[in-house]
Amino acid sequence: MAKIATVITDMFEDSEFTSPKEALEAAGHQLVTIDTEAGKEVKGKHGETVKIDKGIDEVKDNDFDALFIPGGFSPDILRADDRVVAFVKSFMDDMKPTFAICHGPQLLITAKTLNGRDATGYKSIQVDLENAGAKFHDEEVFVCQKQLVTSRTPDDLPAFNREIVNLLASK
Amino acid sequence: MAKIATVITDMFEDSEFTSPKEALEAAGHQLVTIDTEAGKEVKGKHGETVKIDKGIDEVKDNDFDALFIPGGFSPDILRADDRVVAFVKSFMDDMKPTFAICHGPQLLITAKTLNGRDATGYKSIQVDLENAGAKFHDEEVFVCQKQLVTSRTPDDLPAFNREIVNLLASK
Repeated sequence: MAKIATVITDMFEDSEFTSPKEALEAAGHQLVTIDTEAGKEVKGKHGETVKIDKGIDEVKDNDFDALFIPGGFSPDILRADDRVVAFVKSFMDDMKPTFAICHGPQLLITAKTLNGRDATGYKSIQVDLENAGAKFHDEEVFVCQKQLVTSRTPDDLPAFNREIVNLLASK
Repeated sequence: MAKIATVITDMFEDSEFTSPKEALEAAGHQLVTIDTEAGKEVKGKHGETVKIDKGIDEVKDNDFDALFIPGGFSPDILRADDRVVAFVKSFMDDMKPTFAICHGPQLLITAKTLNGRDATGYKSIQVDLENAGAKFHDEEVFVCQKQLVTSRTPDDLPAFNREIVNLLASK
């Protein structure tokens, strides 16, 4: 079963955390929430609260099997922190399973990991994704090289959840 | 005196609207707030409220002398609306004075107007700006071709306000 690093902070899109979490845990996987410091509580756009398990200085990519980036404004806040960007980059460099929905791919852009890759994301970041060298797919979910799973919005969650669970099952 | 189109919606960075507004009005200019529809009230990240003067379908760039894009999460919400993106693009295409602070340049990226330009912006969008073809300057304010004024954060407001007022005075 996989141990999944989940980078998240305030203003996350509530269902884009809770719904994949439910699907991943139902499949037997474990999510570890990561922000600047352990023990803090972060708040979603619609009021959901999440307790942070680990601070970014406490974690190494080697401790995890996969990476999950929920959307909302959380990814944009996180990518202003070079430590989070470096952490995210290590998963992509190692071709570990990486799941990003909505604004989640913003962190992958700042980590400069999308050149030549196939991805989708929220409409507002489409030009950013294309400028980063990604081929943009206006589809509910896109699985690139059996490693990177991206989706656009909360409406895509059933497809996103299905593909991230399937991808981990295939490892 | 200039009539300044101000594109703004919920989650704007409060001081990045109120402070330039004060400086511009003190210099005799007029701001017209624009969002999806006239009459609605939008709310800043810290509680400031702004009444919207005009809906995006009611305005033409020819009615205005300059464009102002306050920061916060407002620009990212607005750039999901193709009408706002087209409106912003017309100011840049016509080389009209354009002022953007913090996340404001996100709208200029989606409008594909920054290739070969010099700009600054909030740290989180630095890679997006560079991927869009802009030269990024980590400075409190940058004036490009006496037309485009950008700044990084609320701390830069004194410099930003000075340069946008000066630029309009020079026209």
